[in-house]
Amino acid sequence: MSTKDTWILAAQCPSRLGTVDVVTRFLKESRCYITELNSFDDRLNCRFFIRVEFRPEEDGFDSEVFQAEFAARAMEFDMSFELTPPGRRLPVVIMVSKADHCLNDLLYRYRTGQLPIDVRAVISNHPDLEPLAAWHGIPYHHCPITAQTKPQQEAEVWRIIQEAGAELVILARYMQVLSPEMSERLSGWAINIHHSLLPGFKGAKPYHQAYEKGVKLVGATAHYINDDLDEGPIITQRVEPVDHSYYPEDMVAKGQDVECLTLARAIGYHVERRVFLHARRTVVFARS
Amino acid sequence: MSTKDTWILAAQCPSRLGTVDVVTRFLKESRCYITELNSFDDRLNCRFFIRVEFRPEEDGFDSEVFQAEFAARAMEFDMSFELTPPGRRLPVVIMVSKADHCLNDLLYRYRTGQLPIDVRAVISNHPDLEPLAAWHGIPYHHCPITAQTKPQQEAEVWRIIQEAGAELVILARYMQVLSPEMSERLSGWAINIHHSLLPGFKGAKPYHQAYEKGVKLVGATAHYINDDLDEGPIITQRVEPVDHSYYPEDMVAKGQDVECLTLARAIGYHVERRVFLHARRTVVFARS
Amino acid sequence: MSTKDTWILAAQCPSRLGTVDVVTRFLKESRCYITELNSFDDRLNCRFFIRVEFRPEEDGFDSEVFQAEFAARAMEFDMSFELTPPGRRLPVVIMVSKADHCLNDLLYRYRTGQLPIDVRAVISNHPDLEPLAAWHGIPYHHCPITAQTKPQQEAEVWRIIQEAGAELVILARYMQVLSPEMSERLSGWAINIHHSLLPGFKGAKPYHQAYEKGVKLVGATAHYINDDLDEGPIITQRVEPVDHSYYPEDMVAKGQDVECLTLARAIGYHVERRVFLHARRTVVFARS
Amino acid sequence: MSTKDTWILAAQCPSRLGTVDVVTRFLKESRCYITELNSFDDRLNCRFFIRVEFRPEEDGFDSEVFQAEFAARAMEFDMSFELTPPGRRLPVVIMVSKADHCLNDLLYRYRTGQLPIDVRAVISNHPDLEPLAAWHGIPYHHCPITAQTKPQQEAEVWRIIQEAGAELVILARYMQVLSPEMSERLSGWAINIHHSLLPGFKGAKPYHQAYEKGVKLVGATAHYINDDLDEGPIITQRVEPVDHSYYPEDMVAKGQDVECLTLARAIGYHVERRVFLHARRTVVFARS
Repeated sequence: MSTKDTWILAAQCPSRLGTVDVVTRFLKESRCYITELNSFDDRLNCRFFIRVEFRPEEDGFDSEVFQAEFAARAMEFDMSFELTPPGRRLPVVIMVSKADHCLNDLLYRYRTGQLPIDVRAVISNHPDLEPLAAWHGIPYHHCPITAQTKPQQEAEVWRIIQEAGAELVILARYMQVLSPEMSERLSGWAINIHHSLLPGFKGAKPYHQAYEKGVKLVGATAHYINDDLDEGPIITQRVEPVDHSYYPEDMVAKGQDVECLTLARAIGYHVERRVFLHARRTVVFARS
Repeated sequence: MSTKDTWILAAQCPSRLGTVDVVTRFLKESRCYITELNSFDDRLNCRFFIRVEFRPEEDGFDSEVFQAEFAARAMEFDMSFELTPPGRRLPVVIMVSKADHCLNDLLYRYRTGQLPIDVRAVISNHPDLEPLAAWHGIPYHHCPITAQTKPQQEAEVWRIIQEAGAELVILARYMQVLSPEMSERLSGWAINIHHSLLPGFKGAKPYHQAYEKGVKLVGATAHYINDDLDEGPIITQRVEPVDHSYYPEDMVAKGQDVECLTLARAIGYHVERRVFLHARRTVVFARS
Repeated sequence: MSTKDTWILAAQCPSRLGTVDVVTRFLKESRCYITELNSFDDRLNCRFFIRVEFRPEEDGFDSEVFQAEFAARAMEFDMSFELTPPGRRLPVVIMVSKADHCLNDLLYRYRTGQLPIDVRAVISNHPDLEPLAAWHGIPYHHCPITAQTKPQQEAEVWRIIQEAGAELVILARYMQVLSPEMSERLSGWAINIHHSLLPGFKGAKPYHQAYEKGVKLVGATAHYINDDLDEGPIITQRVEPVDHSYYPEDMVAKGQDVECLTLARAIGYHVERRVFLHARRTVVFARS
Repeated sequence: MSTKDTWILAAQCPSRLGTVDVVTRFLKESRCYITELNSFDDRLNCRFFIRVEFRPEEDGFDSEVFQAEFAARAMEFDMSFELTPPGRRLPVVIMVSKADHCLNDLLYRYRTGQLPIDVRAVISNHPDLEPLAAWHGIPYHHCPITAQTKPQQEAEVWRIIQEAGAELVILARYMQVLSPEMSERLSGWAINIHHSLLPGFKGAKPYHQAYEKGVKLVGATAHYINDDLDEGPIITQRVEPVDHSYYPEDMVAKGQDVECLTLARAIGYHVERRVFLHARRTVVFARS
């Protein structure tokens, strides 16, 4: 993920003649030079998606004015859009349990700026990973949970997320099933990493399930949370080969790298506005 | 797959001290030089597997005598084994329907000797692929099938397989569900290619299922036929990335290459005696 | 590679404000709906590239008129462009020597329409592959070559290419070094497959070179021919893992699959107008 | 990499009848059960390699006695060998400059036990990474270097390596060329990560070289240090795809993940005694 000096405009709307033109003409008239553009029309869902990177040709680009003026034109097309300034770091909250591989990886990418995120807080139902967060200077919230205290715990988690001003919640191996209410609240702006190639091996202990079936590939899936557990819209997936010498615990160990990479890539796509959600699917203008 | 001048000894038995020694000592005493050896002990299933490539040091190696003498020692360990001479081409029968990509690929590898198989016959429930088989000089049997004629058709297919002296049956996109009886007959010595990452997307139209779920990887699975449809022991699996621009028919097209490669690789492993079946799993001493 | 009902417009020009707009505005005004668009600005070379798939909204689309009118606007931007109708099959000539794996693969993809090409002729300096071409009903030209007859042979080859009306020449393991004159003639519209990861292992016997160096990956490179032998602009590359058990002849065998796939993919990109040449580099709007 | 309860015996010698037998017979007689065995005979170099994982069947296994007795038999075959106890953590010293991605990755794998190494010290020619080492409780030695002080600096580095009792030196992006003397001292027991697919792009700024050539894959190579700079025996290599949108600085960023994974994998293979060095090549009994 490079840190570029370009603005990003991401938009979607129903398919209709002129969807690209309404965006590109406005950019031209605003004297913005397009450095990269990707658009896609989903003909089965009659939905249009566009992502543009651009650079104002002149000083004094006023994003407020830009947005106000573009909104007027977008309205005609029932187009929703989002404008992201160069170098913006998205405020995020990371949720974990005890496993630290994804957290370690994300905090490294955060610290070095490889992922343009601003980690506002780490939340866990266990105290174990506090030192790791502390070393990176990030507030750590221990929110233990039991079947009885789940509603209160989730209320507390929700309060932290809101106070942190998070625009993205990352479930980096948070081993709790969210309540329908919490899933609803986070729907579309929380990314979960699941340690299987969904929809295969949903639920608990996917590597053990995989071992039982004798599969020769294990994988990980990064997806948005929605109301359907382990069935949220998929952002990206990766695999690693395994052979007969991999017992379930070996698969668990091997899976860590692929989980880290898959989650980091999905977050990168999200913060670079490469991911579009519509119905239960994603459009991802990925980079090879 | 190289054409080597080495013999292959493949064996398995229950785990017990001396399992390797009973093989390697005999080879030494028979003045056979081991060029490659792989053994694995499955500690969860208490089962031992070994594959040896060797070269007799002297002329006049008598495989009959070798087998008879080794059998005596193997018996003690309840060890089953198989000896394969160098350059042997396994007699096979290939079953297809209308799709020709796997057949075309296999016949190319057969013709050039890349796969050491001897294709004795092609069987299909459709007449379409006859010219392809004919160009390679292979008998083509058109065995049409309906719900009513299934028993008779399978009897005919079975007759052809037997008359051909096939030691391996390859289901190269044969789009018919085998009866339990036929599955039983072919159990463990017929390889099927399924166009999904089993156990995900079992059954019909797996690419359409995959599209519905919005997956970002599609794959193929080569597995042995057994009594459990689409659940036979997996030999190998491969994947290819797909993105939002892949409609189901694009996935079908893209999947062809991965199906061909997956099936060819599984057959290669099988004929080189790299695959061991035990319970519902395989041990595969694969080559990278 | 899907067979779509969309037109393709591919263009490039120097970087300048309005490069996207000049294309998209014209399409809007011509009542053409853009189903997919990719543009990229190479800031180091100050060069702009765009590829659009579109569908006329109304019957009676006149491509002659379209091109004439667009040319007028493109001129202002010093923009070169190419318009490709849906379902067009690019006329090609394939050049081979004795190895048949790439030819077999390409003719399969041609016959099934997987690659939208029209194979007008196969040219070889050996007679061996005539039956393969014949089975597909393609004229086969045997043009033997020696050091002495090289000029005459290349003149003959050039005549065949021209008479065939080829718009793309495919060197599918044609094991002859082209003369500077021939390279010049084919520059930018002939694709070669080299069996190494260029620029590593240029020249002859790359797998043997790779073996000597003990590499753990072998690969193939599809590139355009230009005046610099084995240094033409790279279109795509693929790798396969190898290990210590691979002697040079095993690498040769293993490399065949990766050569076929790499070449087929490059051709697919070329005929779908996904590849842009500028200076000594390519921009490829690849599909995952 | 799993933490197993098995011993590892790794050996090599000239090819000769009985090489496997001398190992396996001794293990049988010592009442050791072989859980995994791989052997390979390099017919071009007439060299035999074997790696065995085994478990003593009875308590009281005496490794001193085992080694002494086996040495007697091995001598006949001119066989060198190494015995590694279960759970052993190899003492290592890590050398770095300013880039921290590999160090961060290795210390994570060290801390969690994923890599069975005991990091005794970190040495750097810069002070920057001291806090990272400190957080993991590892001594950090800042050894600045100039052209004038190189001999003294290397002497100091050598002293630290020796005092630490290191059995493996890891050059985790140590951006200094070692002197011939230092290379000689570390030959065969120091692993370097180079950020290209060697032998391509040797020397400085390989990603910039790769950009110039317009390659579509970038990679990393983990290799043993020897007297030939960037030409030491290769242990493992990995690649990642790149496209036209990757400027050199993007390749540098993308390359970090592949460098980390390649180096970690090579170290894992080394400590698990999967790597054998002979002449200028390696035999690696890798795990898929």
